[in-house]
Amino acid sequence: MMEMISLPVLRRVAICGGTHGNEMSGIYVVLELERQQKEKGDAAWSIPLTTVLSNPRAIEECRRYMDKDLNRCFTSALLRSPITSDTPYEIQRAQQLNSLLGPKGSEDAVDIICDLHNTTANMGLTVISYSWSNWICLQIFKHLQAKITDVPVRLLLINVPPGEAYSLESVAKYGISLEVGPQPQGVVRSDIFNFMKQGVDAILDWTETFNSGKVIEGGEVEAYLIQKSIDYPRDPKTGKPTAAIHPQLQDQDFCLLQRGDPVFLTFSGETLSYEEEEPLHPLFINEAAYYEKGIAFHLARKKTLSVPSIRAKTD
Amino acid sequence: MMEMISLPVLRRVAICGGTHGNEMSGIYVVLELERQQKEKGDAAWSIPLTTVLSNPRAIEECRRYMDKDLNRCFTSALLRSPITSDTPYEIQRAQQLNSLLGPKGSEDAVDIICDLHNTTANMGLTVISYSWSNWICLQIFKHLQAKITDVPVRLLLINVPPGEAYSLESVAKYGISLEVGPQPQGVVRSDIFNFMKQGVDAILDWTETFNSGKVIEGGEVEAYLIQKSIDYPRDPKTGKPTAAIHPQLQDQDFCLLQRGDPVFLTFSGETLSYEEEEPLHPLFINEAAYYEKGIAFHLARKKTLSVPSIRAKTD
Repeated sequence: MMEMISLPVLRRVAICGGTHGNEMSGIYVVLELERQQKEKGDAAWSIPLTTVLSNPRAIEECRRYMDKDLNRCFTSALLRSPITSDTPYEIQRAQQLNSLLGPKGSEDAVDIICDLHNTTANMGLTVISYSWSNWICLQIFKHLQAKITDVPVRLLLINVPPGEAYSLESVAKYGISLEVGPQPQGVVRSDIFNFMKQGVDAILDWTETFNSGKVIEGGEVEAYLIQKSIDYPRDPKTGKPTAAIHPQLQDQDFCLLQRGDPVFLTFSGETLSYEEEEPLHPLFINEAAYYEKGIAFHLARKKTLSVPSIRAKTD
Repeated sequence: MMEMISLPVLRRVAICGGTHGNEMSGIYVVLELERQQKEKGDAAWSIPLTTVLSNPRAIEECRRYMDKDLNRCFTSALLRSPITSDTPYEIQRAQQLNSLLGPKGSEDAVDIICDLHNTTANMGLTVISYSWSNWICLQIFKHLQAKITDVPVRLLLINVPPGEAYSLESVAKYGISLEVGPQPQGVVRSDIFNFMKQGVDAILDWTETFNSGKVIEGGEVEAYLIQKSIDYPRDPKTGKPTAAIHPQLQDQDFCLLQRGDPVFLTFSGETLSYEEEEPLHPLFINEAAYYEKGIAFHLARKKTLSVPSIRAKTD
């Protein structure tokens, strides 16, 4: 029989949207939560909820970011860096958010941050968390997977130590990013908005159940762990891609690529194949924001994890 | 029997991409044409072809535009406006392009401009032209519709007089815009790239056939004419949309909306219906770039047009 783990009650949850200013569902989910909070008052949720629009300037301009990708600004080093008049806007904003929701790594930090993202890739509803993150995140994932059946729910674990963790949710004790797609940048689709809203509602329900002291049963979950990233073939002179994702791979996120499978189709019509020895799962295929980062898709390995039963210490 | 119309031989064609810097297929089609031209030299096409990346700064930054939507800068008034140091970049660039490809309305203007666009809406391959544009554009549309079978090919006519016509293709004697989607901004999809490339190749083939003096048979074509535009319901205080396109309408461009059909789904879950008396066809449903223009979709009426047979005067 599996171990039972007791964990402190959750006292504060933050839901953040617009960390990337052109990922629209998260922005509208935050605005809808604020509308509900206004309508229902403190009775809206049993746990104090902080809602945040993370990058207001980028939201205003409907851009991913102004000076620098905000969701790469939450390393311990950048959060400590001195602010001058030349400091990029997003580093200043990261330090503000760290004051509001952190400080990162401290007792005062908010218990859960759920940061809402969209992707142009066909990622369904993907829960992203750090692999050092503990049972709370894995149990939340388990709950989402059981509760949400209209869209595939999957778990992606990132293996980066806490100090180097760069994303907003790393400020919380338990950080979760919900990545929902496919949705174009600058567009909100009802279907994608609804998947994300269901995810957020399910997380809030779960924290209520957990805080009630009820035993949350353990079990097994499947996680994806990123092994490497593949860039587009590029023109050596201009640096521009010379191929797009092959039609047979486009929208097939989480499939299993085998050596010889088509991966790219060049603009002159040539098919390029998967050349890795190991079959791996492609993720974030053709994500708009990754062109500038030199990523056509990530490759991940699948792993089964055991999650213990947990309950809140409600004494 | 239908009339036969003789028209001058076509002497110069321009294919333009990147008029909006984040509509990627057009940019890559232009780069691929330039690669082919380099590879095959003057023998590549029988007609002199000019390729243009219309908004290089916006392409570099992967944005629709820098200061002002370039594809609204080709009215006679803006093309004549004096340039000062405060003039928006796109107005300066429009005047440069007018020198290169026009001047608009003059004998020297290039015969055909085909301007390449992408949309996040499910518009398939839509040929857009001005309704005063003549038989050449309608015959090209007829040819594309016969030749391209992988994606629906449709015709949208814009009813604006020449001087007020605002888009790049209005600089040519015969202006065509190819609008291909759905494709997110900042992303190139192989399928959408290939539809667009097939469209461009078919236009170049057609000009060759026309210039050979062969009779191009007439017939009937169906055209869509925009009647009005519908905006999102918005919060009166913030101006932000309070609803997204209803899931039953999303991706259904060119369907026929009847009174009572669902049109929007508010973020709090309420369905809003189509309230027009006249059934009309929605176009550009949920196009990313139209949020700032206050357009959730256009509504169009369908009309059948008769196109005469034409041939080139090859004396």
